[in-house]
Amino acid sequence: MKLGTRKGALGARQIYEALRDQIVSGVYGSDGLLPSSRALAGELAVSRTTITAAYEQLSAEGFIDVRQGARPRVAPAVVDQNKTIQPPRIHGPTRLSDYGNRLKSISQPYQERRHNLIVDFKYGDLALSDFPALAWKRAVNTTMANSPDRLSYSDPKGSRRLRCALQGYLWRARTLRCSPDQIIVVNGSQQGLDVCARLLLNEHDSFVVENPCYTSARYAFRATGAALIPINVDKDGMETQHLADHDARLAYVTPSHQYPLGGVMPIGRRHQLLSWARQRDAYIIEDDYDGEYRYDINPVPPLYGLESTENVIYLGTISKTLSPALRLGYLVVPSQLQDAFALAKQLADRHTPTMEQEALATLIESGTYESHVRRVRRRNGERRAVLLGALRQAFGDRVVIEGADAGLHIVVWFRDFPSSMENELVDAILTRSVGAYPVTSLYEPDQSAIRPDFAGLVLGYAALTTSRIERGIRLMGQAVNDFEAKRRSIPARS
Amino acid sequence: MKLGTRKGALGARQIYEALRDQIVSGVYGSDGLLPSSRALAGELAVSRTTITAAYEQLSAEGFIDVRQGARPRVAPAVVDQNKTIQPPRIHGPTRLSDYGNRLKSISQPYQERRHNLIVDFKYGDLALSDFPALAWKRAVNTTMANSPDRLSYSDPKGSRRLRCALQGYLWRARTLRCSPDQIIVVNGSQQGLDVCARLLLNEHDSFVVENPCYTSARYAFRATGAALIPINVDKDGMETQHLADHDARLAYVTPSHQYPLGGVMPIGRRHQLLSWARQRDAYIIEDDYDGEYRYDINPVPPLYGLESTENVIYLGTISKTLSPALRLGYLVVPSQLQDAFALAKQLADRHTPTMEQEALATLIESGTYESHVRRVRRRNGERRAVLLGALRQAFGDRVVIEGADAGLHIVVWFRDFPSSMENELVDAILTRSVGAYPVTSLYEPDQSAIRPDFAGLVLGYAALTTSRIERGIRLMGQAVNDFEAKRRSIPARS
Repeated sequence: MKLGTRKGALGARQIYEALRDQIVSGVYGSDGLLPSSRALAGELAVSRTTITAAYEQLSAEGFIDVRQGARPRVAPAVVDQNKTIQPPRIHGPTRLSDYGNRLKSISQPYQERRHNLIVDFKYGDLALSDFPALAWKRAVNTTMANSPDRLSYSDPKGSRRLRCALQGYLWRARTLRCSPDQIIVVNGSQQGLDVCARLLLNEHDSFVVENPCYTSARYAFRATGAALIPINVDKDGMETQHLADHDARLAYVTPSHQYPLGGVMPIGRRHQLLSWARQRDAYIIEDDYDGEYRYDINPVPPLYGLESTENVIYLGTISKTLSPALRLGYLVVPSQLQDAFALAKQLADRHTPTMEQEALATLIESGTYESHVRRVRRRNGERRAVLLGALRQAFGDRVVIEGADAGLHIVVWFRDFPSSMENELVDAILTRSVGAYPVTSLYEPDQSAIRPDFAGLVLGYAALTTSRIERGIRLMGQAVNDFEAKRRSIPARS
Repeated sequence: MKLGTRKGALGARQIYEALRDQIVSGVYGSDGLLPSSRALAGELAVSRTTITAAYEQLSAEGFIDVRQGARPRVAPAVVDQNKTIQPPRIHGPTRLSDYGNRLKSISQPYQERRHNLIVDFKYGDLALSDFPALAWKRAVNTTMANSPDRLSYSDPKGSRRLRCALQGYLWRARTLRCSPDQIIVVNGSQQGLDVCARLLLNEHDSFVVENPCYTSARYAFRATGAALIPINVDKDGMETQHLADHDARLAYVTPSHQYPLGGVMPIGRRHQLLSWARQRDAYIIEDDYDGEYRYDINPVPPLYGLESTENVIYLGTISKTLSPALRLGYLVVPSQLQDAFALAKQLADRHTPTMEQEALATLIESGTYESHVRRVRRRNGERRAVLLGALRQAFGDRVVIEGADAGLHIVVWFRDFPSSMENELVDAILTRSVGAYPVTSLYEPDQSAIRPDFAGLVLGYAALTTSRIERGIRLMGQAVNDFEAKRRSIPARS
């Protein structure tokens, strides 16, 4: 009896496995009798107890019937199975739900970041050196030291301590007033958007987005099957005057700092948006994704709370201040929606991990979070200044820069290249091992958006040192010059 | 100009806020002119720079127009808003999606655990003293020390390192063979179930569950609008012979240890289930929620891999071995479904938090996780033995115990009380500050399930010390005797 090659004495488990395989492959023939435990023990040079344990396991699982004073027999059900083995059916096409089928057609699979770049301007990444590692570790240790005796599931809305801390933070930092019960802690903005989509959109509804906008938000809403209504964006954000033409269940907006073009929605348009939502009984999802980062003036107050309205949902995150890998964000929902959001979160995944929540609460309560935010705002302001200076030096007025007043990214429009050459430009820059990202992918395809007919790049800078930024733009300048020269077939300027 | 009561010198922000409030309430009248910066600076005894900063903020947000050599004027849009203020519209009934409306009717809101209990037999909680705090801290520190330079979003399937570690673990511990690419890391079993429900069920589909079964799973599937088909359970788990009557898109099963009644599905029924799924082109979701915990024999091999089939989805978790608060679980999906599950996870919340994933990978790679599992299995075996002994002592043959061979809970049927008295029994036990939980809530309501007409309690014991367990059962015995006496109106036995 071949028993494999594991070192050491045979144990009950190995014997059990081998016997099971033999039984299933029909080794014991049609009468299905196994050796007595005494006989098999002798044959394998193990104790009878070992064999008995293996036989007990096989019996408990229904492979054999153990009988007093007789040899064990293969169970009838197994014997039948052996006799009537179906040929493996060629599995038909995978049948997914409508949602499952939609996913493939609307979204892009995850692409790992290129690792061989000298400088990567990918937006959304943060520098490890900015992460407050010591404070975080201390907060985690405090959390573990204060753990209750029992480890259990907790409130789907999130840790009450964190929600109270966030209430205070939102008032101080964003002049947003709410009750802790209106706050739902989620696994980053993405889960916030996904839950909103599930709770608010049916398949035959419509939803409004800015054009261009954040693609992951677009995917979350489109996945419901609802129809997308793109509204153009100018230097002041969404052109709210166009809303009057449309009915929709919700509008997804970034009024503090339009993503990606950077406009701040002025007060008149804010009222127009709120008025439209009120008349159409629509919800507004305000994504305040980088509200902490303004470099010219103080942070812009949110749409939420501007009018006494019950149809604005506010979405915040720590992905741009602490780390995107932590997966921590929060929704502030109208009080009538509290219960529905709590239920949806509970069904989605019970609650956001407790340790992260409690650690963040500790950071906020101690003031550490806000002093950290001030610090990274300053550091990112330095990076931004270096980036703008380097761009000026490399390109002068050959480029137009948008969105630099706030946030952690800019859009750079290249006057010398039409939008149709954008991907080639990205590739040309890549040959110098610099990662820059095309703005066109943020626009709704097949829509005639009103946009500059220039190639545009989105450049994120929060993960880079100032010297890397300078080097990256220098390399980009060289790449662009080479590209331009090739296009015009004249000798490259060095 | 009243400016509130904040201590210290007035800053630009306070001035900005006060002016904004005044503008919005129409204080500046119909011509809308604000004081010159020089005048206001004098009036408030602050520097002109401070006033200029406040005015710039108001201008950037569109409240005022700042003009060279003239006083700032309230912006026309704001003036219009003031003139035509709509009375706040009474917001109509909250309009949720069909999914949102379903949630309320199918699921129970979260209920916080009672805090004043002497002994709580709530299932699902673990003891903090069992948590390998030092090893976890070390693993987290290792993770932080090895962080890449950039903090970024990562693979929605989960850390590759963790998936490879899980691949090895699943082979060693569960004899389950798969490729790391078939593994999707999720935020606990609940997210695993929710993603399966979204990807596989349309509103007019049907799904099969055991009756009784885990309620959160039932909710996840019912939330899609699909119809529930309950199949009876006996001492060997789901009665698979009844499947032949039904068509469904998926079957949710707990074959290693039926939840809550504890049966192990024997091999004949496993083949019957797989055969049914193959013929109906249905998926089987195998929830191996406590597969590490068998006390009589070795762990039972999973359904997954029993036949060469592409329609079993395996669901595992660390909520019963490490902590439910960590929110860590994993799916093993057929290779044809890998991409769909990765997309669904990405849209749901990008990926499970990186730190937890990497820490778990470290624990598994070092062997710490498996030695921890052996340790807690032993400890829980001790708790179980004490619980069974205490029940024997308190109740003798007045109770029937099910499911004790495995897992972290048992079901105790009280022969002396019909099922209709179950809630009263729970309340009676509660008067002694002991928490016990009714089994009836795990059955599908309004179905005539074949079940003992006894009151049944689900008792979890993993969070309790052995002395608490003994005390809890002693108190339970007293409560039950009092309850019995009251029922029969005879003097209580002490």
